[in-house]
Amino acid sequence: MEAYLDNSATTRCYESVRDIVVKTMMEDYGNPSAMHRKGMEAERYLKEAQETIARILKVQPREILFTSGGTESNNLALVGTAMANQRNGRHLITTSVEHAAVREPVRHLEELGFEVTVLPVDETGVVRMEALEKALREDTILVSTMYVNNEIGSVQPVEEIAAMIHEKNPRALYHVDAIQAFGKFQIYPKRQGIDLMSVSAHKFHGPKGVGFLYISGKAKVQPQILGGGQQGGMRSGTDNVPGIAGMEVAAREVYSRLEENRQYMYSLKEHMTEELLNMEQVVVNGMPCKKGAPHIISASFLGVRSEVLLHALEERGIYVSAGSACSTHKKTSSSTLTAVGMKKSQLETTLRFSFCETTTAEEIDYCIQTLKELLPVLRRYSRR
Amino acid sequence: MEAYLDNSATTRCYESVRDIVVKTMMEDYGNPSAMHRKGMEAERYLKEAQETIARILKVQPREILFTSGGTESNNLALVGTAMANQRNGRHLITTSVEHAAVREPVRHLEELGFEVTVLPVDETGVVRMEALEKALREDTILVSTMYVNNEIGSVQPVEEIAAMIHEKNPRALYHVDAIQAFGKFQIYPKRQGIDLMSVSAHKFHGPKGVGFLYISGKAKVQPQILGGGQQGGMRSGTDNVPGIAGMEVAAREVYSRLEENRQYMYSLKEHMTEELLNMEQVVVNGMPCKKGAPHIISASFLGVRSEVLLHALEERGIYVSAGSACSTHKKTSSSTLTAVGMKKSQLETTLRFSFCETTTAEEIDYCIQTLKELLPVLRRYSRR
Repeated sequence: MEAYLDNSATTRCYESVRDIVVKTMMEDYGNPSAMHRKGMEAERYLKEAQETIARILKVQPREILFTSGGTESNNLALVGTAMANQRNGRHLITTSVEHAAVREPVRHLEELGFEVTVLPVDETGVVRMEALEKALREDTILVSTMYVNNEIGSVQPVEEIAAMIHEKNPRALYHVDAIQAFGKFQIYPKRQGIDLMSVSAHKFHGPKGVGFLYISGKAKVQPQILGGGQQGGMRSGTDNVPGIAGMEVAAREVYSRLEENRQYMYSLKEHMTEELLNMEQVVVNGMPCKKGAPHIISASFLGVRSEVLLHALEERGIYVSAGSACSTHKKTSSSTLTAVGMKKSQLETTLRFSFCETTTAEEIDYCIQTLKELLPVLRRYSRR
Repeated sequence: MEAYLDNSATTRCYESVRDIVVKTMMEDYGNPSAMHRKGMEAERYLKEAQETIARILKVQPREILFTSGGTESNNLALVGTAMANQRNGRHLITTSVEHAAVREPVRHLEELGFEVTVLPVDETGVVRMEALEKALREDTILVSTMYVNNEIGSVQPVEEIAAMIHEKNPRALYHVDAIQAFGKFQIYPKRQGIDLMSVSAHKFHGPKGVGFLYISGKAKVQPQILGGGQQGGMRSGTDNVPGIAGMEVAAREVYSRLEENRQYMYSLKEHMTEELLNMEQVVVNGMPCKKGAPHIISASFLGVRSEVLLHALEERGIYVSAGSACSTHKKTSSSTLTAVGMKKSQLETTLRFSFCETTTAEEIDYCIQTLKELLPVLRRYSRR
């Protein structure tokens, strides 16, 4: 049996996504900037994608900017906003549980002379609101937080954060890294007070190499990739029509049954959490089941190093992640797990299990059963 | 009948490209950064793509950096190199016939305080070597020229330019925008003295949204998109496995019969050029047929505005371009045509016809026949 429980790292494309990608590679393959019919046909895919995504988010189509993925979206949101708004101030706020795609551009801005406040989180990974209140200043131009944490699935109180920012400094912009949230939550940026929002297609069964950045009409952002002036000059380069069309189809499909998918994934999560908590020396991290994201479980298997367990599971066809996939190549410890105050002994034994709506109860049971078999053996082995 | 003669704007994907893209979206869909087998499988595609491209160019695999396309490659080559080398000087050299994806980042660098010399070209679009010689200085850190011009198909004397740069200032780096050249020319960066080279996959039957930048081991470049540290930290973001695998397959296929394709396209070009020159009031622009690129013909149809002719051809199923597709959305005149000294009356009547190896002689004949029918009618019409 096989169980792919690493959907927060990346997902399999929907069949409908494959079909549209193939169609736009082989038939409607024109360059959207071309003046002739083949160009217009290609351009229509872009417009429709903007419209579909705008409808899902209840925003304007022109507020959707296509990028090469979540990392580019985050970079543009941070660096582009800082550059465009530095006359209003040079102070930025972020949190201690951000993904490297936020952390690293922020570090770069710090080198360029911007001042950065990093907010602490509680033991479940949630931003401490009193720290945000204290951090907000006259010269704060941007606050950036995640929506859903990629390692432990905590959900930030986005509306509360937005309300506090906009009340204390109406000029400051709020960027949300929603890469683990889009497709799992109903998100309405305008109602929730979000000014910029990063999304990546391959996290919800769309293609790799494409994403978008929602940029509220009121937000000023300086483009980072210059050239032919595509997308109103905000992001040059021949538009990735197959990627964008694929992302549209994935977004439409995932949002057409969002509530159903959420309920289903929560039921899997509830069941698996319960089983994990029944095991000895297993800790489930993050927020209580239904308060966190529906698709992520973080658990520590005390006494067994996560790589050892990861590879033992892999041998049985179960694919999971230690920390987040996006940083496994670097041998530094997970920043999120450290930030929530986890001790090294626990941190080094932590795995992430992440679902999608096609994950089955049988796969979960198989994973649980395998853990029950493996853990005593591995613990005995590691004690020697 | 249909004739797609806009292959310099973009190409149809090879069937082999479609197959590998589908495979990596649906089967080998892992995240290359994941520690488990599905991650390793995905990573193998990246390594193989680096190896294939390196073999074609006779460079090292680690000198190939994947990007989201030609525009990102150019931006990284220019801005990244300028930033990383500014201690050696702040002088850049480029030419008057560059694509906007070079021109605009250069303009941005100028705003940041870099000094830029723009070299003039002769009437065929070729850089004036004596101007380059004069322009090179002690504090020149980067020279950027095209390989093949996208509007009129002129080929720059890349080796000569490289030799002059490296002789006069061994520290200066040479970047070549080879977006219209890769897949049409045998390119050996090391032998030719190229330090950085930008390539885009969708110009040679690969997918849109992917490209690469060759970065010689000796060149220092500052990454522009930061995050999880993929590609040795030089370009973060989940690697676009389907795009990269598709680009590899396209590169392998196009280079497996390069000489054959070149000869074939030159024969089409020769035939079409002859036919065009036999028409009244038609000028063929750029270098003499075989000196220019095999796939691009630029021609002016005096007395008929290019948009009018473009749409009349489109009605008959013939797709061509006025100027370059990548800038048609902007209503400014073509910079290349202006730079080669073309008068407005000629400039506004210029079309580009661009081939690929599956373009047929019948398509060319159909295009010529259609032009012969249309031109007298349109000329009569425009005289009224």
